[in-house]
Amino acid sequence: MKKNIGPVNALYPMPVVLVGAMVDGRANFITIAHVGIFTLETISLGVNRSHYTNRGIRENRTFSVNFPSDGMVVETDYAGLASGKQTDKSSVFEVEFGPLKTAPMIKNAPVSMECGLLDVLDYGNHDVFVGRAVNTYADESVLKNGVIDLAAVRPMLFDMFQRKYWRLGGPFADCWSVGKNYAGGKK
Amino acid sequence: MKKNIGPVNALYPMPVVLVGAMVDGRANFITIAHVGIFTLETISLGVNRSHYTNRGIRENRTFSVNFPSDGMVVETDYAGLASGKQTDKSSVFEVEFGPLKTAPMIKNAPVSMECGLLDVLDYGNHDVFVGRAVNTYADESVLKNGVIDLAAVRPMLFDMFQRKYWRLGGPFADCWSVGKNYAGGKK
Repeated sequence: MKKNIGPVNALYPMPVVLVGAMVDGRANFITIAHVGIFTLETISLGVNRSHYTNRGIRENRTFSVNFPSDGMVVETDYAGLASGKQTDKSSVFEVEFGPLKTAPMIKNAPVSMECGLLDVLDYGNHDVFVGRAVNTYADESVLKNGVIDLAAVRPMLFDMFQRKYWRLGGPFADCWSVGKNYAGGKK
Repeated sequence: MKKNIGPVNALYPMPVVLVGAMVDGRANFITIAHVGIFTLETISLGVNRSHYTNRGIRENRTFSVNFPSDGMVVETDYAGLASGKQTDKSSVFEVEFGPLKTAPMIKNAPVSMECGLLDVLDYGNHDVFVGRAVNTYADESVLKNGVIDLAAVRPMLFDMFQRKYWRLGGPFADCWSVGKNYAGGKK
């Protein structure tokens, strides 16, 4: 028996990312999990307009999306607690740049996307940045046959309900495959 | 050492959902994981325009977002393989309705959001449906102190790299808290 718990957004867990941008000539990073996928290539980042990073993304029309492993949880959570207005977050992470030049990436994140901005959508007090990767960088240790292996990435997942970070469990079925075993009947 | 693997969208894993809509007077469901969060309340669904469900969402301006548990993997994957154009997917799931009347929900999904449509964004060959919950329903068995407990939901997570469904692991740190332990230094 289901209970009406009100107009709750239940779309969790979501992957935790560190978004990088240049603000006032300095690399800045913000931790968010209100992210999304529009098309196979196009992603979205929902960022409260009060954040320092937003201006850098608008000005340079570039940003990075870095995927921290669970071993980076203290620094990642810290980047969500401290504002770039007061704190130089380029001192928290080793930074590197790709050909876009203005999308600072976190060297020790196992995977980083170097992105170009397509659109900025206006939703309430949030900017929704829409973009896509120009280059994606993955540590050799997280590649299996040239493809990203999430078991090796050890991503952090965000749960707004209990305000916890979760680890990923294991794979248990093949997509576009296991459904072929459906034999009729109602679930 | 990171390797450039090209312009890969690396924003995985993402939660797998079954989106429900009424099409030609019949409940239809589609499996997607290209979802997102814009603001605390606002969510997005990226759906290829070729899908049957899109017309129902546009016409009624309502939809549901149902979260299958891992035990529903066969039916959930099947709903992604079979098109509503050929298959009556209302026969795959027990359906129920809330006050919106035109947002069919899956009775046996542990959590369902009954949503109103705010916007339809045009991205390439995809409709991006933007909406928010009017009511959210959760099975008593997945509520802990009135809040959704992901360990009980047992959500399915989607990995485009290896084309696998994954289980959620365990919680390992508190958000907006563990970062207070940051003692300086670079990661």
